[in-house]
Amino acid sequence: MHYPLGTVKRHIQRAERGAVEQLGLYGVATIHEAMGRLGLMHTIMRPIYKGARVSGTAVTVLLHPGDNWMMHVVAEQIQPGDIVVAAITAECTDGYFGDLLATSFKARGARALVIDAGVRDVKTLTEMGFPVWSKAISSKGTIKATIGSVNIPVVCAGMSVQPGDVIVADDDGVVCVPRAMAAKTLETALAREANEGDKRNKLASGVLGLDMYKMREPLEKAGLRYID
Amino acid sequence: MHYPLGTVKRHIQRAERGAVEQLGLYGVATIHEAMGRLGLMHTIMRPIYKGARVSGTAVTVLLHPGDNWMMHVVAEQIQPGDIVVAAITAECTDGYFGDLLATSFKARGARALVIDAGVRDVKTLTEMGFPVWSKAISSKGTIKATIGSVNIPVVCAGMSVQPGDVIVADDDGVVCVPRAMAAKTLETALAREANEGDKRNKLASGVLGLDMYKMREPLEKAGLRYID
Amino acid sequence: MHYPLGTVKRHIQRAERGAVEQLGLYGVATIHEAMGRLGLMHTIMRPIYKGARVSGTAVTVLLHPGDNWMMHVVAEQIQPGDIVVAAITAECTDGYFGDLLATSFKARGARALVIDAGVRDVKTLTEMGFPVWSKAISSKGTIKATIGSVNIPVVCAGMSVQPGDVIVADDDGVVCVPRAMAAKTLETALAREANEGDKRNKLASGVLGLDMYKMREPLEKAGLRYID
Amino acid sequence: MHYPLGTVKRHIQRAERGAVEQLGLYGVATIHEAMGRLGLMHTIMRPIYKGARVSGTAVTVLLHPGDNWMMHVVAEQIQPGDIVVAAITAECTDGYFGDLLATSFKARGARALVIDAGVRDVKTLTEMGFPVWSKAISSKGTIKATIGSVNIPVVCAGMSVQPGDVIVADDDGVVCVPRAMAAKTLETALAREANEGDKRNKLASGVLGLDMYKMREPLEKAGLRYID
Amino acid sequence: MHYPLGTVKRHIQRAERGAVEQLGLYGVATIHEAMGRLGLMHTIMRPIYKGARVSGTAVTVLLHPGDNWMMHVVAEQIQPGDIVVAAITAECTDGYFGDLLATSFKARGARALVIDAGVRDVKTLTEMGFPVWSKAISSKGTIKATIGSVNIPVVCAGMSVQPGDVIVADDDGVVCVPRAMAAKTLETALAREANEGDKRNKLASGVLGLDMYKMREPLEKAGLRYID
Amino acid sequence: MHYPLGTVKRHIQRAERGAVEQLGLYGVATIHEAMGRLGLMHTIMRPIYKGARVSGTAVTVLLHPGDNWMMHVVAEQIQPGDIVVAAITAECTDGYFGDLLATSFKARGARALVIDAGVRDVKTLTEMGFPVWSKAISSKGTIKATIGSVNIPVVCAGMSVQPGDVIVADDDGVVCVPRAMAAKTLETALAREANEGDKRNKLASGVLGLDMYKMREPLEKAGLRYID
Repeated sequence: MHYPLGTVKRHIQRAERGAVEQLGLYGVATIHEAMGRLGLMHTIMRPIYKGARVSGTAVTVLLHPGDNWMMHVVAEQIQPGDIVVAAITAECTDGYFGDLLATSFKARGARALVIDAGVRDVKTLTEMGFPVWSKAISSKGTIKATIGSVNIPVVCAGMSVQPGDVIVADDDGVVCVPRAMAAKTLETALAREANEGDKRNKLASGVLGLDMYKMREPLEKAGLRYID
Repeated sequence: MHYPLGTVKRHIQRAERGAVEQLGLYGVATIHEAMGRLGLMHTIMRPIYKGARVSGTAVTVLLHPGDNWMMHVVAEQIQPGDIVVAAITAECTDGYFGDLLATSFKARGARALVIDAGVRDVKTLTEMGFPVWSKAISSKGTIKATIGSVNIPVVCAGMSVQPGDVIVADDDGVVCVPRAMAAKTLETALAREANEGDKRNKLASGVLGLDMYKMREPLEKAGLRYID
Repeated sequence: MHYPLGTVKRHIQRAERGAVEQLGLYGVATIHEAMGRLGLMHTIMRPIYKGARVSGTAVTVLLHPGDNWMMHVVAEQIQPGDIVVAAITAECTDGYFGDLLATSFKARGARALVIDAGVRDVKTLTEMGFPVWSKAISSKGTIKATIGSVNIPVVCAGMSVQPGDVIVADDDGVVCVPRAMAAKTLETALAREANEGDKRNKLASGVLGLDMYKMREPLEKAGLRYID
Repeated sequence: MHYPLGTVKRHIQRAERGAVEQLGLYGVATIHEAMGRLGLMHTIMRPIYKGARVSGTAVTVLLHPGDNWMMHVVAEQIQPGDIVVAAITAECTDGYFGDLLATSFKARGARALVIDAGVRDVKTLTEMGFPVWSKAISSKGTIKATIGSVNIPVVCAGMSVQPGDVIVADDDGVVCVPRAMAAKTLETALAREANEGDKRNKLASGVLGLDMYKMREPLEKAGLRYID
Repeated sequence: MHYPLGTVKRHIQRAERGAVEQLGLYGVATIHEAMGRLGLMHTIMRPIYKGARVSGTAVTVLLHPGDNWMMHVVAEQIQPGDIVVAAITAECTDGYFGDLLATSFKARGARALVIDAGVRDVKTLTEMGFPVWSKAISSKGTIKATIGSVNIPVVCAGMSVQPGDVIVADDDGVVCVPRAMAAKTLETALAREANEGDKRNKLASGVLGLDMYKMREPLEKAGLRYID
Repeated sequence: MHYPLGTVKRHIQRAERGAVEQLGLYGVATIHEAMGRLGLMHTIMRPIYKGARVSGTAVTVLLHPGDNWMMHVVAEQIQPGDIVVAAITAECTDGYFGDLLATSFKARGARALVIDAGVRDVKTLTEMGFPVWSKAISSKGTIKATIGSVNIPVVCAGMSVQPGDVIVADDDGVVCVPRAMAAKTLETALAREANEGDKRNKLASGVLGLDMYKMREPLEKAGLRYID
């Protein structure tokens, strides 16, 4: 379904809340693996401060280069537990978002912003504890002249995001779990993590992955040879 | 006015001290807005540690790729409250500046270095509390073979800087306020900040920017439409 | 000597332990200078957390884009005091290394990883105190399908590294000291540092580098002129 | 709809042939404008030779870094008039495609390849007249170890592409027209071009855009002022 | 002198025509050397087609990201022999300029465009023989919403340009010669080229630069040593 | 073996001439495959003009950022059939090489230059038919102040090169074949190309790689499934 520019979709189907919260207990790397090694945004997306891990449901916004007008439009569509995912119609690093918008987003219940552009007032945002993943930090101000869309499918930092999808973000980056895959991904992540503790203990005691994963034979078959 | 390479200007007209100090009370984003959205250096310029905010008057230096000889020449021209702005005649990321030069600059009263190249000894500089905004961290040493100029107009990270201009830098980047615009920029920044607290309170209470800024009508006129 | 892909060299000659430890007392910038301004990896190599400084002997591994199989092979070759240096046969930012491998490397006595690609689980690695210098942070998982080599000469981030060479890394970057040059480099670094304290005191007291290094005459000869 | 990795969709609905051909008569810039300034891939996507302009229907393929196995799978799904759109699950510049695959694709009726990675044998491809838009030219060979998918929705160079969509590419870049918007986009492009000739003649005769587009008044209202 | 945004300066002092034409006889590299190795724009500025060499007087324009409104304003200020130099207030690669604007600029007598952003319709521009130096080729359309300035000092691709300065551009890049330095630069370039032919003949006959430039002694003094 | 900076090695062992010439009959992609997918320089290395293919024996030179003094030293070490491989001790894009040096190199019998930096006078070099692979085109002039080395092992664009190794370069990039591997690589390339013609004919007739390479079974085993 394609929407003309200037569309705001008010009602979206959000991923089931319980799954969202539980997915947030896992790191981005684990969820990405559980999805079959899919779902990651570009590695250029970095958090403005370290240590945050969030999960939430995506509300999406499509903006134009140097124009943050739609940020105010998307604010109204935020529900508690959402993460705003902002895409731009062309490459741009301008500072679309600062402390005032963060105050508004936070008041609406947003947990974070993921933006394929720049952000400013990062010291204040850090003090507020409002995490942002962005590709730039920039003071460059934006105008309010052209309309975009809200809650339509977007491509943010190379990843397709539908409104209502689950976003998980931490120091390792940002992953998008499509709403329909949330339950299954959670299940896989759970299974994947189940024996991690055991593996970690073995490796910590000096057991080699070569033995634990029984790699010696396949490596030899692949042609690996040891010399002195 | 164009100066041949190898010129050191001893007497420059610095921006008025009071304005410099007061501009330092505002963040880079605010000052950039107060200047009519001008004055920012490229976003690639990042602080070597977080949390610093400085303002000062620019003493400028133009250096060659891989050659930091003029750093010692500019040191003599520093007066307390100055910020050294270093431009290079071609793209370079070498480490022009480390703890010894920082000790010297600090002893002369410099508040910071802004350099369109690399810097090293960043751990020591952080411990010294001497902030640097640069585009790279690099241990690469430089030579002392070719002369450049001091206190001439330079382009640093895409921004034109005249000696005596006001430099303000923080986690959001670096802005240059031309000396002649310092007073007016301060005035505008002051006015701009005056009602920020009120706006922030409203937004924090859940009022939307859409209503506070009366954007609903212009958005509708621009063609925005809501669907369910 | 050229080894076919798929070679693991078990016995390598490591740099003398005492020299390795003592080189670790100096920063990367100092050692790079002591080597005649050589040995640095690209400045894009950054630590996943600030403040670490390590020295160790290189065990090397050559991997393919998106394939971390050989990480398990190199683990077995680690001896206490080693630093793993990982090179990739083509440009890649995938996350080759996370908390499980770090647990294994640490158990084997590795002090750090230097990798010309990406790393993940950086929060856990930070908590473990296992430092990594990499060019990206990426959750992207890798496969185990193609063999590479271990303990052969590699090029990592633009620098040639032989197994057994000394690696020193800190906030300023990564430097490689060839095994045969370790003793001489240490000696030069020592001499270089010897009078640093004296220089620092002079500069801190306001003495100019222009005078301390007797630069005024050569600068004048080079054509520098002062104007008012 | 989400498909697990390893899915090949055999039957896709292609955009109507007539519209595809007619869209190919317009340049990428015109079509992008006709779509409301949407649909462009990143500007890093460049043709391997100048002067080609193609239009066709997208068959899509999702591959892994350094693995071109699925290129052979997608070849079977090509129908005359198709353009292969290749996306990679992570950043990669390896050479996924050369003269043998081009021979195969051409024999199947493909008009071009658009790939968010590298390509090789560019001299031969140029001689064959088989155009490729890619982000890199690289000889780096790839393996055949991991399955991906064919004819699923992909994100290529920042743009979402569904199988069957219209791709138009020329020296200005690559644009994707969703199948459902092909007819309308064509209509808009036609209208847009209708009076271009007239405009061009006026401008060529020296009439200014300021007058032809009646911009003087809005510019004055916006605050533009002339000085001497 | 600082002008507020929204200023169009109608009367500028252009460099003397004869000097402009003669400077155009030399390549960019020669002129850059004649200026004392100054004046070059960033190397990212590339011509849209090979083989063009132009010289002209700068008319400058400052635009906003994604907004080409001022391109129509600057068109009116073009006089025969001018080159338009376009700077943007922030990083942007959008396509500000295409065949219609080129038709207009050409009709006004412009010789080229130098723009720190993107350009489109490059095939048509090539056929028209209207050269452009830019940092990107992009179909991305721009809006007309915000005013900038014309014929004020700008920074374009890292180089300061005053209206009326001489711009020379060829396959090697773009150089700006300040108006006041045009005559002297021409003189130096002339002298520099005078004995180039002689040098070229000697080198072509096998004479080494080592001997022609008498470098053996200084190299030996610098410590160069030959081994077998 | 490590050489101090400032060493010029006069006698190097060059790869056998016959092998060098024959390797030049194959493209870079083929040779890279024949080496086991090794040997490539970074893809950022591009030819200054299209269509050239050269092979030759490496004479190496290590230079400092912004300093091309050693270019004159390496000129003397060139023998007919050599290719100069220039590495820089840090990231640099300056124009180290222009038409005068090209005249000298050509007179000495050099076939090409491969440089991990910039080059200028590209129009003249193209007319001379002297090919250069570089990572930048830049007019930026260099100085002659610091000595480097000639005919020592270097890392150029990420690849280790020993003096006397075989360099092959074409539109697909640059590959280095270690001298000791030249004969074997040639043999493998020959075998690899032997049945290329047959494969090409089959693919051109519409036979699929899926069938020609018998991939259907392994793909199915890997889990590939077809849907409608």
